[in-house]
Amino acid sequence: MHNYILKDENAIYYECGYSCDNVIFIQLGKEAFFITDARYSIEAKQHVKNAQVIESKTLIKTAKELLKKSKVKKMVFDGNDFSYDSYQALVSHSSVKFINKPHFSHLKRVIKTTQEIDYLKKASQLGQKGFNALAKYLRKNGFDENEKFLHFKATEKMSQQGVYDLSFDPIVAINENAAKPHALPTSKRLNKDDLILVDAGVKFKRYCSDRTCTAHVDFEKLNFKREQTFKNKKHQKIYDIVLKAQLNAIEKARVGMKAKDIDALTRNVIAKAGYEKYFVHSTGHGVGLDIHEHPYINSKSDVIIEENMVFTIEPGIYLPNEFGVRIEDTIVMQNGKAVIL
Amino acid sequence: MHNYILKDENAIYYECGYSCDNVIFIQLGKEAFFITDARYSIEAKQHVKNAQVIESKTLIKTAKELLKKSKVKKMVFDGNDFSYDSYQALVSHSSVKFINKPHFSHLKRVIKTTQEIDYLKKASQLGQKGFNALAKYLRKNGFDENEKFLHFKATEKMSQQGVYDLSFDPIVAINENAAKPHALPTSKRLNKDDLILVDAGVKFKRYCSDRTCTAHVDFEKLNFKREQTFKNKKHQKIYDIVLKAQLNAIEKARVGMKAKDIDALTRNVIAKAGYEKYFVHSTGHGVGLDIHEHPYINSKSDVIIEENMVFTIEPGIYLPNEFGVRIEDTIVMQNGKAVIL
Repeated sequence: MHNYILKDENAIYYECGYSCDNVIFIQLGKEAFFITDARYSIEAKQHVKNAQVIESKTLIKTAKELLKKSKVKKMVFDGNDFSYDSYQALVSHSSVKFINKPHFSHLKRVIKTTQEIDYLKKASQLGQKGFNALAKYLRKNGFDENEKFLHFKATEKMSQQGVYDLSFDPIVAINENAAKPHALPTSKRLNKDDLILVDAGVKFKRYCSDRTCTAHVDFEKLNFKREQTFKNKKHQKIYDIVLKAQLNAIEKARVGMKAKDIDALTRNVIAKAGYEKYFVHSTGHGVGLDIHEHPYINSKSDVIIEENMVFTIEPGIYLPNEFGVRIEDTIVMQNGKAVIL
Repeated sequence: MHNYILKDENAIYYECGYSCDNVIFIQLGKEAFFITDARYSIEAKQHVKNAQVIESKTLIKTAKELLKKSKVKKMVFDGNDFSYDSYQALVSHSSVKFINKPHFSHLKRVIKTTQEIDYLKKASQLGQKGFNALAKYLRKNGFDENEKFLHFKATEKMSQQGVYDLSFDPIVAINENAAKPHALPTSKRLNKDDLILVDAGVKFKRYCSDRTCTAHVDFEKLNFKREQTFKNKKHQKIYDIVLKAQLNAIEKARVGMKAKDIDALTRNVIAKAGYEKYFVHSTGHGVGLDIHEHPYINSKSDVIIEENMVFTIEPGIYLPNEFGVRIEDTIVMQNGKAVIL
C-alpha cells in the first residue's frame, strides 16, 4: 500500500514520530506530507521524521491540492477515520479514487516492535507503581471517602501528579457499582470489607498500560495483588472463578491460536462454574498507541495470534445490584506464549 | 424538522435528559427512541424523558429495523456526527433518504433557556472558585513547580478533587509557553515575576464554564483578577491592550449585531495598537453542553447575535518565543447586552 491518507492522531504518530490534534498525513509512494496549522507547525518541523511539514489553515483543501498536483489515481483511507462531512469535502471535485480500508493503521500496528514492547513494558511498570501508590493511599485515607474522590486520587496516583498522561479515565467502583463494567464514579463511600474494582492505565511515550484489579477492602492490608482474601464468601467465590479463568488463558494462550480460542480459555472456566451469562464482554483487546486496538479477543474472531502481539486478558463476572469482579493484565506473546507486561 | 437521527452524546442529552457514549437517538414525528446497549439500558430507562429505550447489541442495525418498520421516507442527520463507515452502514440497503444538515443540533441549542443559563452561571461560579483555589495554591506552593505539576493542580482545584467534571483539559502556560494558544504543559518551572496563563472550566449538570486568566506571578499577591500589575513592562503593555480589547467587546456587544461585528470589537483595538498579526484566533465561541458550539464569533460570521446566546469573548496576543496574553470570559446576552456569567 503506497498511497494513503490519515487523520487519526496515533496513526499519524506511528508513521512519523510526531502528531497533534489537527493534522492530515498523506503518503504518496516514497514521499510523505504532514499538513497542520500554525499552532503546531514549528514543533512538527522539529519532530516529524520522513515527511514534509506543510502549514495550512485549511487542511483538507491543501491535501486536495497536493493530490491533484501529484496526479495520484488511488488513495487508501479508513472510513472510521473521517466523518461523513470531511470525507465528502475530500472527494468532492476530486478525480482521485478513494478506497476504504477500515482500520488499516491498526492492522499495520498489530505486531509490536522491540522498542514498542519496551515502551509498553515501561508503561505497565508505571501503572504498577500507580496501583501501589493508590493502595497505600486507600489504606491510610480511603475510609469513608466516596468514589468520585477516590477516582480523583486514582488519577493523581496513576499520573504521579501529572507527570504521565493516563491511558483512559480510570474506573473506581465499590460493590454494586463494580457490577457495571463501565461504571462512572458516584458518591458511594468506601467501607471495611467492601469490594473495590480499579481499572486504570498510564502512558509512556504515548504507549498505554491497562490493568484492572479487584480487591478486598481492609484498611490495614488493602493491596492490588492477585491474591485476595475477601471477608464476604460470595465475593471470594466469584473472585476465585474469575482468577482461575484469567490464569487459564494466560497459561494456555499460544501463538497460532485463533483469538476466539483464547476467548474460550476464559469463557469456558466461567461457564463451567455456571456464570457465563454474567461475563458480558469479550476477553480482551489489543493495546498500543491506542488503548483499544487490534487484535480483539472475542468469541467470534478468527484472527491468528502471532508473536509480539500485545493484548489484555480481562475476564469478569458482573452480578447486577450485588457486585462485580474483573481481573485484567496486558500481555505480550513471546516465544509462543503469553508474558504479563 | 420531525425526523432525525443523532449519535452525539450531548446532542442526545439535550433531546431527552440522559445520554451515554454508545447510543443512537431517533426522532420520528412525535415518537422518539433511545437505542443503547446493556451497559446503559437500566439507567437510561430511569432517566430518559419522552423517548422509548431500546436495548441492542447492534445499534445501527436496530436503528435501521426501526426506520424500516416506521416506513419513514426522509431522515435528517449531521454529517459531522457520523463517521463515513457508520454512515455507510446506516444507508446501505435502506430506502430512507438521509438529508445532511450539518450542526443542526448545535443550531437548535444556540439560544439558551432560563434553566440552561442558570446551569451555565452555576458552572461559572464553580470555575471562579477553582481559579481562586488555584491562586491560593500557587501563592503558597507554586514556586519552582513545573507546568505539568501545576496543570495537575489546576485539574485538582477546578474539579474540587473530582467532585465536578472539567469542561476540557486545562491549559497552564508560563511565559513563552503562553505564546502557544494551545500549549501542552512542559517541565518549565514557575518563578517570581513570570507571566502565567490558565485556561480552564468546569461542568455543572453537563453545562460548561470557560475562562482564561493571565496573571503576574508574585508569591505574595498572585491572583486571577482582571486587574494585573506586571513587573515586566512589555507584559503590562500587552496585557493592557488585550484587556482593553476584551472590555470593549463586553461593553459594546449588542443583540442584533453580526458575530463578525463583535469580533471586530476586539480585533480593532488590537489592530490599532499594532498587534493584529499576533491575534491568531477568533474572538470566541458558543458554550453550552459542548465547550465549543454556536455561535462562533469570528471575522467572517454573519450570524445575528440574539438574546440568551452564550459565548466567550477571548482576545489574545501571542508573541512567539516571548509570551502570550489571553483574557477570556463567558457571557450571556441579556436585555440586549453582554453580561459576564
